Amino acid sequence: MCQLLGMNCNTPTDIVFSFEGFRLRGGLTDHHADGFGIGFFEGRGVRLFHDDKPSAHSPVADLVRAYQIKSENVIAHIRKATQGQTSLANTHPFMRELWGEYWLFAHNGHLKHFSPAPGDYYCPVGNTDSERAFCHILEQLRQRFRHKPDNDTLFAAVAALTAEIRSHGLFNFMMSNGDFLFAHASTLLYYIVRKAPFGQAKLLDDDVAIDFAAVTTPNDKVAVIATLPLTVNETWQQLAVNELVMFEGGDIVRRDVPAHPVYMSAEEGLDIARAAGVSV
Amino acid sequence: MCQLLGMNCNTPTDIVFSFEGFRLRGGLTDHHADGFGIGFFEGRGVRLFHDDKPSAHSPVADLVRAYQIKSENVIAHIRKATQGQTSLANTHPFMRELWGEYWLFAHNGHLKHFSPAPGDYYCPVGNTDSERAFCHILEQLRQRFRHKPDNDTLFAAVAALTAEIRSHGLFNFMMSNGDFLFAHASTLLYYIVRKAPFGQAKLLDDDVAIDFAAVTTPNDKVAVIATLPLTVNETWQQLAVNELVMFEGGDIVRRDVPAHPVYMSAEEGLDIARAAGVSV
Repeated sequence: MCQLLGMNCNTPTDIVFSFEGFRLRGGLTDHHADGFGIGFFEGRGVRLFHDDKPSAHSPVADLVRAYQIKSENVIAHIRKATQGQTSLANTHPFMRELWGEYWLFAHNGHLKHFSPAPGDYYCPVGNTDSERAFCHILEQLRQRFRHKPDNDTLFAAVAALTAEIRSHGLFNFMMSNGDFLFAHASTLLYYIVRKAPFGQAKLLDDDVAIDFAAVTTPNDKVAVIATLPLTVNETWQQLAVNELVMFEGGDIVRRDVPAHPVYMSAEEGLDIARAAGVSV
Repeated sequence: MCQLLGMNCNTPTDIVFSFEGFRLRGGLTDHHADGFGIGFFEGRGVRLFHDDKPSAHSPVADLVRAYQIKSENVIAHIRKATQGQTSLANTHPFMRELWGEYWLFAHNGHLKHFSPAPGDYYCPVGNTDSERAFCHILEQLRQRFRHKPDNDTLFAAVAALTAEIRSHGLFNFMMSNGDFLFAHASTLLYYIVRKAPFGQAKLLDDDVAIDFAAVTTPNDKVAVIATLPLTVNETWQQLAVNELVMFEGGDIVRRDVPAHPVYMSAEEGLDIARAAGVSV
């Protein structure tokens, strides 16, 4: 099973604590041992690290820990290849430029019979359904909007494209332009918004705790989004099945939620992934 | 003064030896202390490292050394900012996708009054003349060719675009799609093609030698291209002023050279850079 991790904050924050638990799922505490990728926005630029080594043992992941990069938007992905070869060109997150901004995208799931016509503006480089979905979203946005629209219009357009694409299968994804972060659940996505008063948190995957009060200021707001909760002593919220949200400044600012929301249990989500024989 | 380093080979080769000498120019043996970037093609994928720390002291550069990534095409750039802020969005090499391939580009020089109209397909994210030039090249190629043309046609088109852009100033650049590598000199670019029988080489910037015979096979062919020669005991060739070449498989396969080629001395090239008050 692949896993997603995202962070959206109102101030540049390092993701080391969350990433430490997350990366251990790549080869130690879980079986996502076919590489990983992480992208950090820094201003308008992006720092992107990809590796085909398991994240638990990757020198690139060691660097991420050592470097303590501070960012307002981060997207990370650990891969368990269940089909298709492991190659750098197929490693998430993917990056493209749209409207003079870099966009990052990572997906877990599987899309069946999803082969949109080659775009005028965006073409996949690798051969994953994930990169095809990303290119399709950007292509349709660019076709429709020569210039970046306001955020309400953009959110509505992404929601419509997401509904179209998820009709092909499992489509858990995160996407960011450095200002905000979209997150969509087909099965499992959890999030937590950390803000004052900050408390302690303890990782689920490792015997590590952190006192956020010691490393934050009272105005900080930090949203962490992940396939499964990363800590044991905090209350994580769950996205409903087919819910799309937009995080900005560390909080959800727009949401598109079904009229009758359904929340999937972790067991059910994992079973669906296994039954589909795919990387969820 | 900024510096460029490129490698094009017929077999995946690690660039550690050349990079070791090159990176020391970023803060130790020279003054290019405002960050660096390096991009490695791996199949159709790209591994891209950017850092705003001087390359001589950068943990990212340490990782590049430790990791010994093997690649057939590499482009690296050390930056000495003489104008414009140092930011990740302005760090070379830049990357975009064209015709379903990633392209990397790095530039040293300075372009005056170069403000092409915003493209339909490519927009700069940062605010450097370099990224504008890269986006302009890709935009014009994409406008003209819906699909990738044959290499002769592509080379001619890049040569024409290069001639147009260099009328605006100093335009030393390298650009690669992972198959071949373009290199163009306005002032200084040197190259060496290493092939059997391989000998020893000794770095100019460090007390390090390597016996290539011990780390290569007889069929290997490795071209290294740099702003200034990196080794003391090898004969580096120089590109003429306004010469554009295409490397493929470790050798020059196409060249566009002036009828009366002029070769600039290193001193003259450095003087021009200083006189222009720019990063050459």
